[in-house]
Amino acid sequence: MAIKFKLIKESKECMARLGILETPHGSFETPVFMAVGTQATVKTLTKEELEALGSKIILGNTYHLWTQPGNDVIREAGGLHKFMNWDRAILTDSGGFQVFSLAKLRDITEEGVHFRHHKSGERLFLSPEKATEIQNDLGSDIMMSFDECPPYPSTYDYLKKSTERTLRWAERCLKAHRNKDTQALFGIVQGGEYEDLRRYCAEELVRMDFPGYSIGGLSVGEPKETQNRVLSFTTPLLPKDKPRYLMGVGSPGMILDAVERGVDMFDCVLPTRIARHGTAMTSKGRIIIKNKEYERDFTPLD
Amino acid sequence: MAIKFKLIKESKECMARLGILETPHGSFETPVFMAVGTQATVKTLTKEELEALGSKIILGNTYHLWTQPGNDVIREAGGLHKFMNWDRAILTDSGGFQVFSLAKLRDITEEGVHFRHHKSGERLFLSPEKATEIQNDLGSDIMMSFDECPPYPSTYDYLKKSTERTLRWAERCLKAHRNKDTQALFGIVQGGEYEDLRRYCAEELVRMDFPGYSIGGLSVGEPKETQNRVLSFTTPLLPKDKPRYLMGVGSPGMILDAVERGVDMFDCVLPTRIARHGTAMTSKGRIIIKNKEYERDFTPLD
Repeated sequence: MAIKFKLIKESKECMARLGILETPHGSFETPVFMAVGTQATVKTLTKEELEALGSKIILGNTYHLWTQPGNDVIREAGGLHKFMNWDRAILTDSGGFQVFSLAKLRDITEEGVHFRHHKSGERLFLSPEKATEIQNDLGSDIMMSFDECPPYPSTYDYLKKSTERTLRWAERCLKAHRNKDTQALFGIVQGGEYEDLRRYCAEELVRMDFPGYSIGGLSVGEPKETQNRVLSFTTPLLPKDKPRYLMGVGSPGMILDAVERGVDMFDCVLPTRIARHGTAMTSKGRIIIKNKEYERDFTPLD
Repeated sequence: MAIKFKLIKESKECMARLGILETPHGSFETPVFMAVGTQATVKTLTKEELEALGSKIILGNTYHLWTQPGNDVIREAGGLHKFMNWDRAILTDSGGFQVFSLAKLRDITEEGVHFRHHKSGERLFLSPEKATEIQNDLGSDIMMSFDECPPYPSTYDYLKKSTERTLRWAERCLKAHRNKDTQALFGIVQGGEYEDLRRYCAEELVRMDFPGYSIGGLSVGEPKETQNRVLSFTTPLLPKDKPRYLMGVGSPGMILDAVERGVDMFDCVLPTRIARHGTAMTSKGRIIIKNKEYERDFTPLD
């Protein structure tokens, strides 16, 4: 087993829990927030700054690294950790979300997804096997199975077919995964806002026995109440002794809502992206540092 | 005296010399190259990276800091060192070079220079007193007197009048300088390519007894041979026990030429600017890191 999750404490008032996740590149407490290092770098931040911020695990994007510089280049460099000089943990997504959010002219088949690169227009094909191979080349500590992330809203019928395919894809990812001892592959629970689909998906994934579970298909435009409702009935379907990762979330409020509902791991571009444009998230709310009122304010941000 | 220069060794084959320059923010060996931190930051580099590179002194630009965020803001922050969290030495220019290279619609009078900001178009006025006041507010370890940097080529008559005015401006800077114990003001030798003008300027400045001397008006488009010829007859006019700074130079070859001619200090945007666009200066020449041949080269740059 590549990772080990220790459940330290559970809240008596809600589903919140404290844990420790051990990975081949260090341990950290959960709940944990992961900064996003899309192209093998958390933009503008050095490794030293990330460490000083207390980052124990960051995220890399399979879609971007596959197309630039290429997973073969990163494999030759000795893996993503060496390539980016980061010796703490890394989680990679499967590329699926970007295929559905960035890429053009998608054609989804049972085999995988044909699409065009969002910048070059190049014809590309991503499948469960390919997404797994890329992530094996990257050598991330935690990998994601290749799923379809359906848009919100989608019809029940579409979501049912999509969820069934995502489950078949999850099995193919498990089968294709070469490095089970050093990389933990998470299954992704889909099913939109429908409790029976989420239940079906979660139960099937748990049957496949993944070392961790992601909750996908949220934070795609649905109301906050829907997201919280889905979380409330989804996390109890997942084993207590495995980490739970809510993909792409999010704002501090959303994170707290999800922690209350038993989620352990989060990622979002929000804090780093707004920081690059001058907005700091502090314990007292957002500070837009370019505002006139801060011109002569030399006190710490927080 | 704000700074102390110790001459350690002189070459027997040329005018090259080794020295140690002590400043209120640390000592360093000369010859020294100063990275340029125009807007209170050496672009893309953290303080830690600069320190790791061995930077003991960096340059800040008076023109830029005066107009954004304003020398009053930096003074209120406790000076440029505190403002940019850099506790090693800082040298500031006088703003003169930018007035003559960047700004629009210049009008040079005995009092100073009226011009428009290179971006906003705002009407501005810089004089010896103003340039000195700004640098006193910035609190740099080494300041420059406000000079005119005439274009190349200029007529002998123009250069003579300009050099005489630059000398009058140098005296006004000396008089306006508030912090002689903590900031060393350098005089700037002008005079174009004319030996008698350079001699006149150098002798007059030495008479005013500056703690260091800059050589200005070079690297403005003249042939390399002209620059070397001017240096060869200018540095012997300057006292041996004071540091000599060749402003805005330059390429490694130019620096070596100038070191041979007795120059101690250099600055240029060249290495940091080309590095930001993917060119590294190494002991084996320039490496354009984006070239295909380096795609799978994981060896150190140098």
